[in-house]
Amino acid sequence: MPNDSFLKNIKSPADLKKMSVEELNELSEEIRSQIVETVSCNGGHLASNLGVVELTVAMHSVFNTPDDKIVWDVGHQCYAHKILTGRYSKINTIRKENGLSGFPKRNESVYDTFNTGHSSTSISAAYGISCAADINSDKHYTVAVIGDGALSGGLAFEGLNNAGRSKENLIVVLNDNKMSISKNVGSMARYLASIRIKPSYLDAKSHIQSRLEHIPGIGKSLAKGVKAFKNWIRDTFFGHRNNMFEQLGFSYYGPFDGHNIEQLQTAFKAAKRIHGPVIIHACTIKGKGYEFAEKNPKDFHGISAFDIETGETKPSQTSYSDVFGNYLCSIAENDKRICAITAAMAVGTGLSDFAKKYKNRFFDVGIAEEHAVTFSCGLSVGNTIPVFAVYSTFLQRSYDQILHDAAIQNLHIVLAIDRAGIVGEDGETHQGIFDVAFLNTIPNVTVFSPSNFTELESMLYSAIYNTKSVAAVRYPRGSELYIPQDYCCENTDYTFYGNTNSEHLIITYGKLFSYACIAKENLEKQGIQVCILKLNVIKPINSDAVKESLNFDNCYFFEEGIKNGGVGEIFGFMLYQSGYKGNYSLTAIEDYVQQAKTESALRKLGLDAESMARKIIENQTDGK
Amino acid sequence: MPNDSFLKNIKSPADLKKMSVEELNELSEEIRSQIVETVSCNGGHLASNLGVVELTVAMHSVFNTPDDKIVWDVGHQCYAHKILTGRYSKINTIRKENGLSGFPKRNESVYDTFNTGHSSTSISAAYGISCAADINSDKHYTVAVIGDGALSGGLAFEGLNNAGRSKENLIVVLNDNKMSISKNVGSMARYLASIRIKPSYLDAKSHIQSRLEHIPGIGKSLAKGVKAFKNWIRDTFFGHRNNMFEQLGFSYYGPFDGHNIEQLQTAFKAAKRIHGPVIIHACTIKGKGYEFAEKNPKDFHGISAFDIETGETKPSQTSYSDVFGNYLCSIAENDKRICAITAAMAVGTGLSDFAKKYKNRFFDVGIAEEHAVTFSCGLSVGNTIPVFAVYSTFLQRSYDQILHDAAIQNLHIVLAIDRAGIVGEDGETHQGIFDVAFLNTIPNVTVFSPSNFTELESMLYSAIYNTKSVAAVRYPRGSELYIPQDYCCENTDYTFYGNTNSEHLIITYGKLFSYACIAKENLEKQGIQVCILKLNVIKPINSDAVKESLNFDNCYFFEEGIKNGGVGEIFGFMLYQSGYKGNYSLTAIEDYVQQAKTESALRKLGLDAESMARKIIENQTDGK
Repeated sequence: MPNDSFLKNIKSPADLKKMSVEELNELSEEIRSQIVETVSCNGGHLASNLGVVELTVAMHSVFNTPDDKIVWDVGHQCYAHKILTGRYSKINTIRKENGLSGFPKRNESVYDTFNTGHSSTSISAAYGISCAADINSDKHYTVAVIGDGALSGGLAFEGLNNAGRSKENLIVVLNDNKMSISKNVGSMARYLASIRIKPSYLDAKSHIQSRLEHIPGIGKSLAKGVKAFKNWIRDTFFGHRNNMFEQLGFSYYGPFDGHNIEQLQTAFKAAKRIHGPVIIHACTIKGKGYEFAEKNPKDFHGISAFDIETGETKPSQTSYSDVFGNYLCSIAENDKRICAITAAMAVGTGLSDFAKKYKNRFFDVGIAEEHAVTFSCGLSVGNTIPVFAVYSTFLQRSYDQILHDAAIQNLHIVLAIDRAGIVGEDGETHQGIFDVAFLNTIPNVTVFSPSNFTELESMLYSAIYNTKSVAAVRYPRGSELYIPQDYCCENTDYTFYGNTNSEHLIITYGKLFSYACIAKENLEKQGIQVCILKLNVIKPINSDAVKESLNFDNCYFFEEGIKNGGVGEIFGFMLYQSGYKGNYSLTAIEDYVQQAKTESALRKLGLDAESMARKIIENQTDGK
Repeated sequence: MPNDSFLKNIKSPADLKKMSVEELNELSEEIRSQIVETVSCNGGHLASNLGVVELTVAMHSVFNTPDDKIVWDVGHQCYAHKILTGRYSKINTIRKENGLSGFPKRNESVYDTFNTGHSSTSISAAYGISCAADINSDKHYTVAVIGDGALSGGLAFEGLNNAGRSKENLIVVLNDNKMSISKNVGSMARYLASIRIKPSYLDAKSHIQSRLEHIPGIGKSLAKGVKAFKNWIRDTFFGHRNNMFEQLGFSYYGPFDGHNIEQLQTAFKAAKRIHGPVIIHACTIKGKGYEFAEKNPKDFHGISAFDIETGETKPSQTSYSDVFGNYLCSIAENDKRICAITAAMAVGTGLSDFAKKYKNRFFDVGIAEEHAVTFSCGLSVGNTIPVFAVYSTFLQRSYDQILHDAAIQNLHIVLAIDRAGIVGEDGETHQGIFDVAFLNTIPNVTVFSPSNFTELESMLYSAIYNTKSVAAVRYPRGSELYIPQDYCCENTDYTFYGNTNSEHLIITYGKLFSYACIAKENLEKQGIQVCILKLNVIKPINSDAVKESLNFDNCYFFEEGIKNGGVGEIFGFMLYQSGYKGNYSLTAIEDYVQQAKTESALRKLGLDAESMARKIIENQTDGK
């Protein structure tokens, strides 16, 4: 248990205001130890949280939350914020079922202004909040905290472009850690690097402080004076008149040392004196204070439980991502048309090797899923074969690009959809449960759903070589699950596995096939014969699969995805339209799914092996 | 018929290369007259097309299309391009059924590189094409032509951010007409205004030309020389070292007079000598050369047929957009929480009055639909009531923001979805046929579907005051259609209209209700009794509506939207699951819908009154 002599006395952020800078520094060290301890047990986002400890302490010591509002971009850096806002005693429950979320949640605390999870939303949300405050004559501040990586997202630019003309109390804290989840890319990153090196704040600080006392109070009649001061301070100390952020209408201050609480406090106090949009540029170090994370922030971005002394996690099993990456490399060697695209997720999607081996055919576009798809369309026009590897949840960003830029004009692009289905502890913002339903709405899209590594490879081959227009292959987080020895992988649209003379037919796809097999075996032990229809191509549904299902008295569809617009509903509709008179039962997801271990979440949803078996037994009992 | 003495001899862009600047200017005038003539007959995008005549002529005279590739952003400015690329003889068919599209279409011509319709895609697509060219060792140029309005879209920024590090032959032509569809907003617009006024090109031209002859040929070993020249030319003539585009990694040249062919040719030739991303900033005048359009480019953006002499169109009937705008104004007067948000469509969505009356509660965010939703979420957090008015097709851009930023955290925002359903001559990229299906996939969303003006008002009221989380009201383009005198508008989830003892039940929603009424009346004349179930709330479906439908032998669902994931499929599935044993027929849209007058498109889709009646008569005959 780390030392918490300061921490245990913090009941709310108000307590920070009485503390000296030295005390706040000690507090920061305690928070840091607490975070390392917690994440080493629960897993979570380590490097990002260690990077913003002083930033968080400084913000809460200057702003009056919850009246002043802080919006955390992405939200995976909110642990210190949670610890300081009355949730220290529960921090050991973070990311656990029924525990604290690893992301800001409005229903968890009044200090959590805006739920996040996906990147680049904070400026838009904070600008909206500040406009509402203005309408309501509320003079409080709204602060967006956004990383440099998140700035590559178009939504962040749309926010900047709009907020730059704001007259509200809007402060954007640019948490510049020189990288996002992957190494940061693009011109914005290069630009930040160019301004980062100007150490103009170093001796400016004391000057600012002495001048601050002379600033007139804020009021409309004095606006001119304030603006003049703003220009003066900028020109005198910073010399960034041509800074891109200034060009977008923001007052820019920085760069500051994001681990120097005193400097940050000064900056925030200065920002509060300005009506209008301000950017405070703070440079932080990802993983700060924990040696292993500082050295290797990529691996300590999102991490499972680890050993604090050695920084080592349990060796992980081969994952679908690994198999995808290796297979793509192997075909790229013989086919120079294959390109790989990622939106800042090269490591997570298994593309690290591809990036090294095929440098000129590898494109990390930054956190920019919309661009990734439209850019892939351009690559396709140019007669290459683009494969965009992306987490299911982030592909939601690309709905219009898949529809309007790819599918309408029948361009051949391949979507490798990783983390499809329930993902576990990251919770509701990260579940991959919508991709199937939203892809179902788009004509000219084919979706493959492998249930094991062999099928991932063969379906990826089909998507690349035997499919026109948009071809998606979706596969779950982690490793392959149970496969019966007598199951033979086939590269067909669908597979019947088991006795086709059974009364009961389980219909499913993806990783649930493994659970269905376990359910089948358990039911057979009880004398109940079950057949399984595994859909390999889930869009479009092969009508023969529907016809062959007509023979079964009871069909049970289990779907690890949203019900409305999902495969189960469409399959059921087709079945009925074909004249089916038996019982069709559909178990699918009807609401957002909270954080929990994947197994536990699936059990609650009625989608694990035990639930499947129970459903069939109950139906038999009902029927009798 | 306008004079076409030059035009009639242009068989392909190659013919332009032999022509003098004077001849090209005369050609431009002919093209301009042709465009005015065509749009005055067919309707279409006038102001944008008149603005780029010289730009298009200059581009095709310098670049070697189709080997060099031009990507038109949005695409509503491609008429001159079509005229010059072998389609002059068909230009009078533009926007008509089976005629030329008003947008670039790859299946129409090899000169149409990339299909567009939605904004801000061109840089991403062009960068993809240029990367593919590099992989294929193809040295041709890729040119993206993008308006200043489209630059406010985040996708364009994502493209710029990525392409800025490119080493390919990528040229971005910034067609700066000082406004997009609505008056341009945001910091980027202000920034462009600031650089637009530097007339540094005026006497630079001849210097450039004399220098051009001394540039070394392009080759790797000479890259340094080229770069030095690039810097020299920029520093000497343009002085834009701190230009935002330069900061993003582009070489920037301009601003140029976008109606001066000679100047543009010089600029394009210079751009061709540079390896790497270049921006050519051309200032154009929307509506150039046609007095009425120059004076009033907003009204001549997208226009129906008009009188060339007077510039007048037929007076249009009151539209759903008008009713929406007026009603929102009326409730905003008494409720200071009401805010209106538009993404550069204030006029189209009927918000012009609101913008004038409630300035501090009106937000035009530019072409930025993602931001519009997340910004609305912020407004909602701040206890106001945001109403985002948006065309159905453009809302596709906001899928993730509706899901992840609004619905997950149950924030109350109102979506006023205009142009829902078939929109007519703009064709497949603009049909509003996906919103229902993609909103169906998102939990915590309510969707209202009025069939007339009275219902639009009452449902808007319900969405604003009686609905939690995301509430959408969707309504069609144009005016209300036929309403039977005995039909009484009710603000309930659903309405049965007609004899509930009938054998036949037509189920529908939105504007198709009018067609259903006509079908019903015609069938009754033939002695066939029909009842209509009109769904007012289409998500979630009230299960009582399903139960009450069980009594009918034949149910016919007609849906002006995509079938997969649509209401008809979900309703049918619910009906069957409730034990329905009758005939359920679903007529919905299964593919992209090509341009045609709305009536004609609906007829082809089997969704007009006649098709509805025929369906029922055929079924009766079959049944006998």
